[in-house]
Amino acid sequence: MGKKLTSRSEDYSKWYNELVVKADLAENSGVRGCMVIKPYGFAIWEKMQAQLDKMFKETGHENAYFPLFIPKSYLSKEASHVEGFAKECAVVTHYRLKNAEDGSGIIVDEDAKLEEELIVRPTSETIIWDTYRKWIQSYRDLPILVNQWANVVRWEMRTRLFLRTAEFLWQEGHTAHATRQEALDEAEQMMHVYADFVENYMGVPVIKGTKSESERFAGAEETYCIEALMQDGKALQAGTSHFLGQNFAKAFDVKFANKEGKQEYVWATSWGVSTRLMGALVMTHSDDNGLVLPPNLAPIQVVIVPIYKGLEQLDAISEKVEPLVKELRAKGISVKYDKRDTHKPGFKFNEYELKGVPVRIAVGQRDLENGTFEVARRDTLQKETVQADAVIQTIVSLMTEIQENIFKKALDFREERITVVDSYEDFKKVIEEKGGFVSAHWDGTTATEDKIKEETKATIRCIPLNPEQEDGKCMVTGKPSTQRVLFAKAY
Amino acid sequence: MGKKLTSRSEDYSKWYNELVVKADLAENSGVRGCMVIKPYGFAIWEKMQAQLDKMFKETGHENAYFPLFIPKSYLSKEASHVEGFAKECAVVTHYRLKNAEDGSGIIVDEDAKLEEELIVRPTSETIIWDTYRKWIQSYRDLPILVNQWANVVRWEMRTRLFLRTAEFLWQEGHTAHATRQEALDEAEQMMHVYADFVENYMGVPVIKGTKSESERFAGAEETYCIEALMQDGKALQAGTSHFLGQNFAKAFDVKFANKEGKQEYVWATSWGVSTRLMGALVMTHSDDNGLVLPPNLAPIQVVIVPIYKGLEQLDAISEKVEPLVKELRAKGISVKYDKRDTHKPGFKFNEYELKGVPVRIAVGQRDLENGTFEVARRDTLQKETVQADAVIQTIVSLMTEIQENIFKKALDFREERITVVDSYEDFKKVIEEKGGFVSAHWDGTTATEDKIKEETKATIRCIPLNPEQEDGKCMVTGKPSTQRVLFAKAY
Repeated sequence: MGKKLTSRSEDYSKWYNELVVKADLAENSGVRGCMVIKPYGFAIWEKMQAQLDKMFKETGHENAYFPLFIPKSYLSKEASHVEGFAKECAVVTHYRLKNAEDGSGIIVDEDAKLEEELIVRPTSETIIWDTYRKWIQSYRDLPILVNQWANVVRWEMRTRLFLRTAEFLWQEGHTAHATRQEALDEAEQMMHVYADFVENYMGVPVIKGTKSESERFAGAEETYCIEALMQDGKALQAGTSHFLGQNFAKAFDVKFANKEGKQEYVWATSWGVSTRLMGALVMTHSDDNGLVLPPNLAPIQVVIVPIYKGLEQLDAISEKVEPLVKELRAKGISVKYDKRDTHKPGFKFNEYELKGVPVRIAVGQRDLENGTFEVARRDTLQKETVQADAVIQTIVSLMTEIQENIFKKALDFREERITVVDSYEDFKKVIEEKGGFVSAHWDGTTATEDKIKEETKATIRCIPLNPEQEDGKCMVTGKPSTQRVLFAKAY
Repeated sequence: MGKKLTSRSEDYSKWYNELVVKADLAENSGVRGCMVIKPYGFAIWEKMQAQLDKMFKETGHENAYFPLFIPKSYLSKEASHVEGFAKECAVVTHYRLKNAEDGSGIIVDEDAKLEEELIVRPTSETIIWDTYRKWIQSYRDLPILVNQWANVVRWEMRTRLFLRTAEFLWQEGHTAHATRQEALDEAEQMMHVYADFVENYMGVPVIKGTKSESERFAGAEETYCIEALMQDGKALQAGTSHFLGQNFAKAFDVKFANKEGKQEYVWATSWGVSTRLMGALVMTHSDDNGLVLPPNLAPIQVVIVPIYKGLEQLDAISEKVEPLVKELRAKGISVKYDKRDTHKPGFKFNEYELKGVPVRIAVGQRDLENGTFEVARRDTLQKETVQADAVIQTIVSLMTEIQENIFKKALDFREERITVVDSYEDFKKVIEEKGGFVSAHWDGTTATEDKIKEETKATIRCIPLNPEQEDGKCMVTGKPSTQRVLFAKAY
């Protein structure tokens, strides 16, 4: 365990980095910018994957797998796409090593140069649309609703565990449609799927909206997004879903014969969430004692710690605990009974607090005598003594209560940090002093957006869906505007 | 659909390639040697993954994730390991593209050269043992039982879908132990886990054994393997589990304090199976009409095809079929009711035959009148008429029967193709004319093994576990031998 975590108020960024490592979620590797996701962290990611995968399948999607490598020439086929990704690509140029003649070790074999350099996929639109050309001839072949779970590489210069790493894990959906409207509906649907997952499983409230032109995905005509707010008042983009128009179909010549037999270009979407969500999960709920995990994603939902002197007492406690473990498991609750004799209860309490286990049950000699359990919640740090015959019901209820409570807490936090402003002066003050989302009028131009970004570091996080129409003036230029947009500093 | 498959007797290799593509399992991509795994193929792989993952977890393993890239210098730390992999590595040398000044497109930015070149992992021992050094201090930190699902790259020159591709998907277990015996037990255990999976889920019989020194994994002291036999008489290595001794611990300086406080090097294993298993699955059971899938891994276990004239008849059939679909699903059987009006029943029959769906139910006008279903098995191509009240029980039983039947068929096929020989002349004749496994005495030297390989293309597939001890003479050199080993030509 070692010494205590840095507190959030002291240094939020340091708190985050320490917590991710100490709670055994992830750590830096010997490869610049690439992380190791440790078993405990990966167990959370697996739960996220399983739930998302289920939701994708329920909405008609299938999984497939496309190559890791993309020929350099593919990337350049869609002009704005290459613009967006060229500078952060890892490039494979050779395919063999050999021993250096001077005995200094192994070196790249210069004779084994690739004819065409390969890019390690930063995202897969190009290789997938090159494939879809072969899959699509007629309207009968549409829609194609495919998802891929994969690793991708974007050569980031400043990296942080989960939030920004050179390699990360994600899923990327890539769909093909016969009509513009169907593709738009798909892109919007997936934003709602993401919001459902992030709110109801991660317990992280999000605002749904679209991106301004300059914040859109490279190659998209519309980017739908969900935006969350972290405890330091900075926003985090939790998922995006893109309407790609016919851009990739045109770049890769993917046409279909419509019902009338006429050739048309195919309409596309793509959508993704990544291990970045792990960062959002940590930063939304956790506190100065460690992680706080939502029951819906916690690898261990309940931990039971015996408090005893001597193995005889431990045996008596185990006799009481083991049936409880069985009953909880039968209810689908994941339980760990930690009767390691190598560690003291206090050490275990700290460990499970740090790791965010939602409920801790302690059982000591007095509990044996009184027929009780001590039940502690991680989210509120409250403890109560529960009679044995009520303990199952208490735990089952707590799973829902804790899930709801941490969502509500995060929602209240965010609601307090949406500030409506009408002047640029107020805007700058709020961004600087209070943080959070600022709701303001904007004239819709990239020039104004750029100016605001340059002067305040705040960007348009989203143009909320279905906003109230309200006549107003851009806070910077005074030009007319009909709806407010949300600004924030962001991760 | 197009025209019929090439038959196995005509050209086994062509039959395989055609079948993999036509049955929608996989196809070649625009990237040399890299395949696209299509949704139907990926659905089978997902079922394999889910079952294997369950078996790994039941034996105490957890998942984690390590970087895709490995610094070149790591690879060279274990001498025989670098020897084994250096020539088939993809090498990342640069991290940025830019526009060519002459406007000819995008090129690699020579200014953005990496300080140290990175290898795209061909396997992860080196990056993982570099990490384990940080995780292991004391015997209390052991064992570490970790598995990773990942993509790996081996730059193969001659590739074939699933069997040998430049990129493939696999799992790699990497475990760390305090004692030699514990590591040996782990390596052997995982061979048994693999054999259990391959025989009972894939329906592919395997022979368990160890590899001769020259066939061992680069860096291993012992390689356990399971070997299967394909319908063309060639062997296929279906999974390997390696006892790595202290080789990687020494290369990466991974020591632990034992109970007496003394520093010792850690003992290691690694074990893996890959998408190559998909190739084994196809080649073991399928026939000239297409795939034959084991019920335990079939994405669709039962397909129901209505035979009707006019939508009124279809409605009457659907009324009878829909409760059946529900009941079968309630029993955990995956069912597809294909009532597409765009395709004829004959087309559908061919499609599901090609795709290996274990059971096909057809329902026509006469069945409606008689209260029956026509039930056809994919494995035997037999059809029977079943009364409505017996159909659920028939289908449930067929799931087990078909699973057992295809295993037995493959086992009989293999048993007929294990030939015991005592002279090198007979050996050459059997290898050349009959194929399959040849059981022969061998003097235990690499020189003899190399000579046999050179002259016959046959290699030692495995030294069977717990063989009968038998005094004999090497068929080539006449030197004494105490047990027979199995030779074959192999994939």
